[in-house]
Amino acid sequence: MSGNTIGRSFCVTTFGESHGPAIGAIVDGCPPGLEISESDIQADLEPRRTGTSQFTSQRQEPDRVKILSGVFEGRTTGTAIGLMVDNVDARGRDYEKIKDRFRPGHADYAYQQKYGIRDYRGGGRASARITVATVAAGAIARKWLHERLGLTVAGFLSQIGPHRLECVDAGAARANPFFCADPGRLAELESYIRELRRDGDSVGARVTVRARGVPPGLGEPMFDRLDADIAYAMMGINAAKAVEIGDGVATAGQRGTEHRDELTPEGFATNHGGGTLGGISSGQDLIVHVTFKPTSSIPSPGRTIDVAGAATEIATTGRHDPCVGLRAVPIVEAMLLLVLMDHALRRRAQCADVVAGTPDITR
Amino acid sequence: MSGNTIGRSFCVTTFGESHGPAIGAIVDGCPPGLEISESDIQADLEPRRTGTSQFTSQRQEPDRVKILSGVFEGRTTGTAIGLMVDNVDARGRDYEKIKDRFRPGHADYAYQQKYGIRDYRGGGRASARITVATVAAGAIARKWLHERLGLTVAGFLSQIGPHRLECVDAGAARANPFFCADPGRLAELESYIRELRRDGDSVGARVTVRARGVPPGLGEPMFDRLDADIAYAMMGINAAKAVEIGDGVATAGQRGTEHRDELTPEGFATNHGGGTLGGISSGQDLIVHVTFKPTSSIPSPGRTIDVAGAATEIATTGRHDPCVGLRAVPIVEAMLLLVLMDHALRRRAQCADVVAGTPDITR
Amino acid sequence: MSGNTIGRSFCVTTFGESHGPAIGAIVDGCPPGLEISESDIQADLEPRRTGTSQFTSQRQEPDRVKILSGVFEGRTTGTAIGLMVDNVDARGRDYEKIKDRFRPGHADYAYQQKYGIRDYRGGGRASARITVATVAAGAIARKWLHERLGLTVAGFLSQIGPHRLECVDAGAARANPFFCADPGRLAELESYIRELRRDGDSVGARVTVRARGVPPGLGEPMFDRLDADIAYAMMGINAAKAVEIGDGVATAGQRGTEHRDELTPEGFATNHGGGTLGGISSGQDLIVHVTFKPTSSIPSPGRTIDVAGAATEIATTGRHDPCVGLRAVPIVEAMLLLVLMDHALRRRAQCADVVAGTPDITR
Amino acid sequence: MSGNTIGRSFCVTTFGESHGPAIGAIVDGCPPGLEISESDIQADLEPRRTGTSQFTSQRQEPDRVKILSGVFEGRTTGTAIGLMVDNVDARGRDYEKIKDRFRPGHADYAYQQKYGIRDYRGGGRASARITVATVAAGAIARKWLHERLGLTVAGFLSQIGPHRLECVDAGAARANPFFCADPGRLAELESYIRELRRDGDSVGARVTVRARGVPPGLGEPMFDRLDADIAYAMMGINAAKAVEIGDGVATAGQRGTEHRDELTPEGFATNHGGGTLGGISSGQDLIVHVTFKPTSSIPSPGRTIDVAGAATEIATTGRHDPCVGLRAVPIVEAMLLLVLMDHALRRRAQCADVVAGTPDITR
Repeated sequence: MSGNTIGRSFCVTTFGESHGPAIGAIVDGCPPGLEISESDIQADLEPRRTGTSQFTSQRQEPDRVKILSGVFEGRTTGTAIGLMVDNVDARGRDYEKIKDRFRPGHADYAYQQKYGIRDYRGGGRASARITVATVAAGAIARKWLHERLGLTVAGFLSQIGPHRLECVDAGAARANPFFCADPGRLAELESYIRELRRDGDSVGARVTVRARGVPPGLGEPMFDRLDADIAYAMMGINAAKAVEIGDGVATAGQRGTEHRDELTPEGFATNHGGGTLGGISSGQDLIVHVTFKPTSSIPSPGRTIDVAGAATEIATTGRHDPCVGLRAVPIVEAMLLLVLMDHALRRRAQCADVVAGTPDITR
Repeated sequence: MSGNTIGRSFCVTTFGESHGPAIGAIVDGCPPGLEISESDIQADLEPRRTGTSQFTSQRQEPDRVKILSGVFEGRTTGTAIGLMVDNVDARGRDYEKIKDRFRPGHADYAYQQKYGIRDYRGGGRASARITVATVAAGAIARKWLHERLGLTVAGFLSQIGPHRLECVDAGAARANPFFCADPGRLAELESYIRELRRDGDSVGARVTVRARGVPPGLGEPMFDRLDADIAYAMMGINAAKAVEIGDGVATAGQRGTEHRDELTPEGFATNHGGGTLGGISSGQDLIVHVTFKPTSSIPSPGRTIDVAGAATEIATTGRHDPCVGLRAVPIVEAMLLLVLMDHALRRRAQCADVVAGTPDITR
Repeated sequence: MSGNTIGRSFCVTTFGESHGPAIGAIVDGCPPGLEISESDIQADLEPRRTGTSQFTSQRQEPDRVKILSGVFEGRTTGTAIGLMVDNVDARGRDYEKIKDRFRPGHADYAYQQKYGIRDYRGGGRASARITVATVAAGAIARKWLHERLGLTVAGFLSQIGPHRLECVDAGAARANPFFCADPGRLAELESYIRELRRDGDSVGARVTVRARGVPPGLGEPMFDRLDADIAYAMMGINAAKAVEIGDGVATAGQRGTEHRDELTPEGFATNHGGGTLGGISSGQDLIVHVTFKPTSSIPSPGRTIDVAGAATEIATTGRHDPCVGLRAVPIVEAMLLLVLMDHALRRRAQCADVVAGTPDITR
Repeated sequence: MSGNTIGRSFCVTTFGESHGPAIGAIVDGCPPGLEISESDIQADLEPRRTGTSQFTSQRQEPDRVKILSGVFEGRTTGTAIGLMVDNVDARGRDYEKIKDRFRPGHADYAYQQKYGIRDYRGGGRASARITVATVAAGAIARKWLHERLGLTVAGFLSQIGPHRLECVDAGAARANPFFCADPGRLAELESYIRELRRDGDSVGARVTVRARGVPPGLGEPMFDRLDADIAYAMMGINAAKAVEIGDGVATAGQRGTEHRDELTPEGFATNHGGGTLGGISSGQDLIVHVTFKPTSSIPSPGRTIDVAGAATEIATTGRHDPCVGLRAVPIVEAMLLLVLMDHALRRRAQCADVVAGTPDITR
């Protein structure tokens, strides 16, 4: 109950800290018979690895995943899948100077207040490094959802600082370190990040993710709505500050006649709602936006207190991302995959034999 | 698991439909010894009642709550608290005309696809009427949180259509049907709603809620973060399309030096983060914004399909709110109270005897 | 989390006390489309009613169940089913004399230690009266399991005090107040109970329940084994002190060659295991035994303490059963039905499309 | 939800198979600040190791536990604790001959029916080897419960085949391979096991465990009763067929005047109930008995079917225990510790500030 598990039917429980020996996950509830290999999972881990470009953290982690259980002769057995990734390039000594003071905007202070103790090395459990476990688990969900339902999930960077970015070519997003789906603007982003580095500063970002092929009927009617569980999953990513479905915050300014997505025998006429109706998937594309605050660990000095409560100053050096949002796309995709997988299984539990009695206009 | 329960330590499970005989909740995990009466709960139900102004639905429901268990001689016993509110002014016949077709933007189509059957009367389980149960449960949380922790929660309408509204006087919000905390702008809002009614249209809105007195240390480090659970709770409210914590979507455009809330011995210098660090409460005020889409049930005709899949048209008459966001403030407050109560108890489970070892700068 | 909910996929949450206004349940996760009526449920409530024979409590409760939600036009909709039964014959005044002292063997003392407050009227939440809610929920599970899987559950009294009873005629068990499946021994039981009443004493009992038509593959491999969840459910019934599967305690004295149920193409050769292998249903009949301690509320005076801790004496009059085990059969059946229903749905979530690849020798 | 997690507030999730690379657990919800080391855990693992006497399986596993997270500078941090034990002496080839046929009494057939695939090597996930993870997690619970509450848990073998054994010297149980607390009977047991080996047979057993220092007030009133959760935990151990609390199955034959434990200012006069009242701990010693069926993997040939459903015969050689109950004592202890730890934390969540208002006669 201490919050290291996500999901009800497809459950992922993780462990690990930034500078401990390893990070891992237990995936519980995966349907048996799914072909899965370490290289299938590795393919999803690559995009979130650090040290692969000059625009992200320089920490060198191979992120090699090991499957420790739950797979036999190349197929899932239906029992718990143990996944592990060793931490290879941990440098605990880098953090001696933040041992006794709290980084503004970082989890340091809150952890100390909650637990009375904290693993200050690299942010401990609060590090974005931990998301390697989530992404590994998401890769299993991705394979099943694609094979059984034809469902795909793909994200891109839709804003960084003042730059708003469109999805011109979805496939391009995984081909550059910015997850930018508008290749014509890469030079602009490169110089922007260099400027940030020069200023010793960081910046926020917004990521957009779209799931295609979502069957209608996923999500529960009251609290575990599909959009509610997505909001929970996304807001649980490090540095997330906002989650929007479909037109999101813009709907506050819309009229009903403008927002409602009319139904026609050929499908929905528009998609302002972002793929849910009453919290249940409509079969339309699912569209989610997540906003990330700027990285709190930055070289620019700021005011803070030390553990004794005295005023002091802090400047974080070490190997940090100037924009955590840049590497968030694979994580956002993984979280969406986990939620969709969970609800796909939940739907089978209750509604495996339902006949809708009305045509599915999204197929 | 079908999503009618919220919370882990303080659990609320609800039942009921818009036009069934009654709506109710079971509140499980409430600490024993809390003085609570039906009138304590009633006080929280009043603000969300319909039929009390011309600006909301004209359905006349007294919303009288009955406590059926869990309270003995005026105090909670620690066992399950049963709450029930009768539906008095249900008019099932109003809905005959939508029986065979789906309202655009409404849950109708998704329910039919999921379950193959739906209670079409007043939206059934998808109706905002159901929130009477959540608000009743929230009233119990409110009392405990205030008595034991001095914690208070208050919300207001921060946007409706093109009108953005400030919190000039928090106390004023409950004194008008718009939950507007800027009394000088009431006339403007009244004429705006009248115009909407005239146009047979509806509009979106944004609600802001603030919790004061939140102790630091609430929320789990990985998935059940305080902000994640808040996002889950808020996105689970009917018509919610976005949840923001603190500066929310604006943080995508902020720099680290601008966003980070510096710590001083006298407290945090700013509150861009909205009260959480690493998903755990910092002791700062908790600030949450929820955006609601426009009501989908509107008189303006729109294109849709019937249950056989044929193209047709629909215009919803009946007793609907022109802006569901208008009555959302008590619901948003209740959801936040439920999440805070749950995490207050969860914190006791794991950390009842923690000594923080560092001063709490928020007290 | 305070333990008023049972089940993961088919979840039942209950409220109510012996002498409160009503007892109820919320059934969450029921598949949609099931035909169910109040009279279907009533049929399962009748056998556990008090006041219907001279051998049980004389409390007169009609136990009329009301369906408050989740059923529309005679079919389940897939949303939460609210059930309620009014308490009609509560006599709170009967309990004034036990207000300040604890009945030996009763929950009184433990409740006081845990909560610091207790509803002493009729045992409050600890009363067997509460099981009316569980039995009502079990009736829904019974109908679905029978209609969809052909599964049936039936129990009988297998021991009361020194009398061990066989299942001579399973159908006879519901035709007498002892749930005795050996009609030739009814006179013996009647005189035994009369003797107990005369002595102001009570006695323990053992109930046996058998499920036929259980599909193989129900139950999880590690903790939520089918037998573990059954043990949990049964030990959660008032006064239960032992749960056995198949040969139960006798297996301590068995050899492997004697116990193991050999497989043949025509089925299992024997059924010592009681229907589970590795915690998962084998397709054999499921056989469960539950032992109940003697009723603690008896007229024979005993030593106890009062709330101040001083030595005193107590004798419980009022309307009590001389043997709680006598009315336990419908409750044991209901608990088994709830567990089987939950696992039937859970199996669909994970394994809906499994092909066993080996013949099912139990069909 | 697929049953690899136990506990609500202190949650243990495990992974691993008998012949996979490793077995592990994630312990979630441990209070921060607890001093814990790998050697603390190792001390609990030793008693359940195989290969340490001629009376158990000869598989040689060092069972070295590694702490992978959640502990910093020797103390728990409150975040997820990752534990791992490598499998060193796996011999998959031993199992080729059972690949295509099902051992009577073993999980083989049920797994195949459920999942359509099974890791047949050493029983895969159904192997008692997996309990190494549970015992490791239990060691953490043991340390906290002892340090904070003074609570201790100790078990012994109370029956094996026809031999019933008393607890003459509780401390002696860990000093012999039979966990026999009556040292005078060791020679008798040794010759009994040798006889079983000679016969190519196995035998059942019964284990008794006692917890001292349990505070009153643990356990929930309805479903998650302390005894219900104990029954769930114990019946979830491999080969368990019965769980009894206190006088257990014998209570069916007891009268109320005999069974009820009278209260006196100096404590309870007797302990027939085994430490719970109404499912809540009374503060008396908690007494639990678990019965284990005979090992199903035995050399004596028996009838079975192959995967195609044809009749065949099987005889299991390999390295098996002639009596699984012999090594069950550390596992039974661990399960009880996990349940008590979970409820100790759950009690804090709801009742941290309760004043009982009546003396605790057990202290």
